[in-house]
Amino acid sequence: MHFLAIAVILCAMTYLIKDIAHQIADGTLNARDHIENCLAAIDDKNGQGQNTFIETYHDRARAEADAVDTARKNGWALPPFAGVSLSIKDLFDVAGDVTKAGSILLADSPPAKKDATIVARLRQAGFILIGRTNMTEFAFSGLGMNVHYGNPLSPYDRKTGRVAGGSSSGSAVSVSDNMAAISIGSDTGGSTRAPASYCGIVGLKPSTARMPSDGVFPLSPSFDAAGPMGNSVACVSIIDSIMAGGVGVSETPFNPDGLRLAIPDGYLMENLDAEVATAFDAAIDRLRDAGVHVQKIRLDALEAMRPSNNTKSIVSAEAYAVHRQWLESDQSDKYDPFIGHRLRGGADILAADYIAMFEKRDTVCHNIKMQTRGFDALVLPTTPGIAPAINAMPTRDKQLEMNARSLRNTAISNYLDRPTISIPCHKSGTAPVGLSLMGSRHHDRRLLAIAEGLEAIIRG
Amino acid sequence: MHFLAIAVILCAMTYLIKDIAHQIADGTLNARDHIENCLAAIDDKNGQGQNTFIETYHDRARAEADAVDTARKNGWALPPFAGVSLSIKDLFDVAGDVTKAGSILLADSPPAKKDATIVARLRQAGFILIGRTNMTEFAFSGLGMNVHYGNPLSPYDRKTGRVAGGSSSGSAVSVSDNMAAISIGSDTGGSTRAPASYCGIVGLKPSTARMPSDGVFPLSPSFDAAGPMGNSVACVSIIDSIMAGGVGVSETPFNPDGLRLAIPDGYLMENLDAEVATAFDAAIDRLRDAGVHVQKIRLDALEAMRPSNNTKSIVSAEAYAVHRQWLESDQSDKYDPFIGHRLRGGADILAADYIAMFEKRDTVCHNIKMQTRGFDALVLPTTPGIAPAINAMPTRDKQLEMNARSLRNTAISNYLDRPTISIPCHKSGTAPVGLSLMGSRHHDRRLLAIAEGLEAIIRG
Repeated sequence: MHFLAIAVILCAMTYLIKDIAHQIADGTLNARDHIENCLAAIDDKNGQGQNTFIETYHDRARAEADAVDTARKNGWALPPFAGVSLSIKDLFDVAGDVTKAGSILLADSPPAKKDATIVARLRQAGFILIGRTNMTEFAFSGLGMNVHYGNPLSPYDRKTGRVAGGSSSGSAVSVSDNMAAISIGSDTGGSTRAPASYCGIVGLKPSTARMPSDGVFPLSPSFDAAGPMGNSVACVSIIDSIMAGGVGVSETPFNPDGLRLAIPDGYLMENLDAEVATAFDAAIDRLRDAGVHVQKIRLDALEAMRPSNNTKSIVSAEAYAVHRQWLESDQSDKYDPFIGHRLRGGADILAADYIAMFEKRDTVCHNIKMQTRGFDALVLPTTPGIAPAINAMPTRDKQLEMNARSLRNTAISNYLDRPTISIPCHKSGTAPVGLSLMGSRHHDRRLLAIAEGLEAIIRG
Repeated sequence: MHFLAIAVILCAMTYLIKDIAHQIADGTLNARDHIENCLAAIDDKNGQGQNTFIETYHDRARAEADAVDTARKNGWALPPFAGVSLSIKDLFDVAGDVTKAGSILLADSPPAKKDATIVARLRQAGFILIGRTNMTEFAFSGLGMNVHYGNPLSPYDRKTGRVAGGSSSGSAVSVSDNMAAISIGSDTGGSTRAPASYCGIVGLKPSTARMPSDGVFPLSPSFDAAGPMGNSVACVSIIDSIMAGGVGVSETPFNPDGLRLAIPDGYLMENLDAEVATAFDAAIDRLRDAGVHVQKIRLDALEAMRPSNNTKSIVSAEAYAVHRQWLESDQSDKYDPFIGHRLRGGADILAADYIAMFEKRDTVCHNIKMQTRGFDALVLPTTPGIAPAINAMPTRDKQLEMNARSLRNTAISNYLDRPTISIPCHKSGTAPVGLSLMGSRHHDRRLLAIAEGLEAIIRG
């Protein structure tokens, strides 16, 4: 009894979905208590609930939790993750609710007729929806600030006030602050991984084709991928499996000894915050000590893509195509001017240029595939810096600079469409730093098995 | 012996690749004789060889034929179609040769380093390459006229001189005039089917994703599909199988009794030449007599696409993207001015519009799929008219009008990306008329099995 109480307390400190599911299933934890803990964290006046959620499902979550507890007590069959709390980014459809994608522009839209496939699969697996998390308006920025719904803060150094990273800012904080055991974000240039890095949790960008996109408000369909954010690789792996139509399992971890990782030497390793360099280097040392081969390689095709202020990209063309109907309407003043300006950047891109960008992308993907196929994964810092302090970005220009910096290392994975997972590698109590492992396109489950094999070493 | 001689003569009149392959394999026909017959037809001063081929492979074809005969006499293993003649449209790569795509612009390009996958597969199956067939410059027109390499004539009414249809004009005539047993064309808006209809042979547009596109000069990658043109459904079906990586078989024919066909009532059935209406109606009567259910249906989504003079299409955007490098260069005067003008039509299409066209296309495809899924195939005249006389198109405007007319019924299949086969349905000795059967996307082999079941009835 004493031991169980400790287990419950530990889990309350860091929700692991497999443990919570087991505890609810065997009756050591009531689903209602688990949900009440989450709701209490959301409602805590000293907490981040207000800025973290755009909408919460208090009543429905309680009713569903009670149904789970009743079913369990009666011995009825329950789905594998019955009663486990889940938050979703504000761009996933839930039947009966309005999908606003962090905007006020869509606030008066009709409610969704049905759940996004991803949401439906998770609900069917038993997860209980806690609420819709805050995000950068229309997911088009990496800091996670939102002029309409506030700025969720990274759990680190709350006194200073640092951004959570974006665009899935609320998803990250909902997990880091125990408001939900797991969250679903989306990632077009780093939107699950940058917040995971800034908030000290695990975030995954799957291969784009792996995830159903129906009922998900798009940013750039060629690059978008919904992805899970949680407290462990296993949590994220289980959710990835369910999201992609699987049964909800994690993989047998790889043996670290003899694995081959490559660090892409060049601009992705330049200009790192001291905290990032220190934590990353120490993690690499630990990996080497565990028998992992880590080697620096030069990827010239990547170097040629060193980010510029070029706003003419596949993402900007596709984002403009999504938003043109509103940008050209009398509703256009409802955009955050910063986001509206960025979206308009895609207006004058020619079809021929757009097509040429895909041809170039194919060439780059092929070159990098050829140069990296001898490695099990690439390894690099998820973000060059730690979570920026909000008051260190007083101007729009500074915000733009830090936005580009937040997504510098992550956007590569979307361009290459390679699954990538960010795992915390900092010392407990210091600024969160994420280490990313990048796998091969469509080999998402292999990457997750490798990540699970390396997680304990990376965390140190 | 007498019977065999007749069989050989019959085959010389209409090459069927399975028969030729068997005769070569069992020694009743020397490969060299078969190839010499083809070359003689090409070299016939009263024939169409000059306008039908841009390049021929006389020496190599003879050497390969001799090798086949030697191998057979020695009892060596031979591939299944050893010695059977094959022509290919001028846009497929053959190692060592220049792919000109019917242009003079590319005449000085470096020779191809390797065979297109499609060419390699057919050569490996034993086919002997006879030559590269004439085509509309860069495949961007449906009449099959070429200012650089001449106009191959339809086999019908040679005295008047009628176009063969395009863009795969030479491919059609090479088959109709016994210069090759089979030919490979490509189809972006009707380029295998319109010439098949005008020349009285069978032509197939496969689902685009079914055919490898490497080593094939593109027109519009989203719509392009290489496709076989031959004297029977079985010929085309065998080649389709090999092109797609299969072993080279035709399908077990469907039983016609109880099959359900739909005629898309509306503009696709309007304004038909009398010859086309007569032949098509008679074929439908024969199909009904054989127990096929034929029903007219109204496809409103198709009607909304009734062709206009709109040059802003997916095809024009993609074609411009392919050609921009040359259109903007000092080589631009090497284009046929007609083709150059059409290609420039895609220059100012915006990326957002291009993306929106695909969204609209998805909606149309879905609507038509829902309305037609109760039928085994759609059935319609391949072209509204018979092969136009060249002297009936004295002006550029008249050519444009007849070009649009030639592709009116065929372009639908590319827009919907549904496999479609054109089968002759006219009475022997009259103007060729093609009847098209359109299947469901990616169900190409089912369509071919249906077509083989209906072919004899359609031909009458």
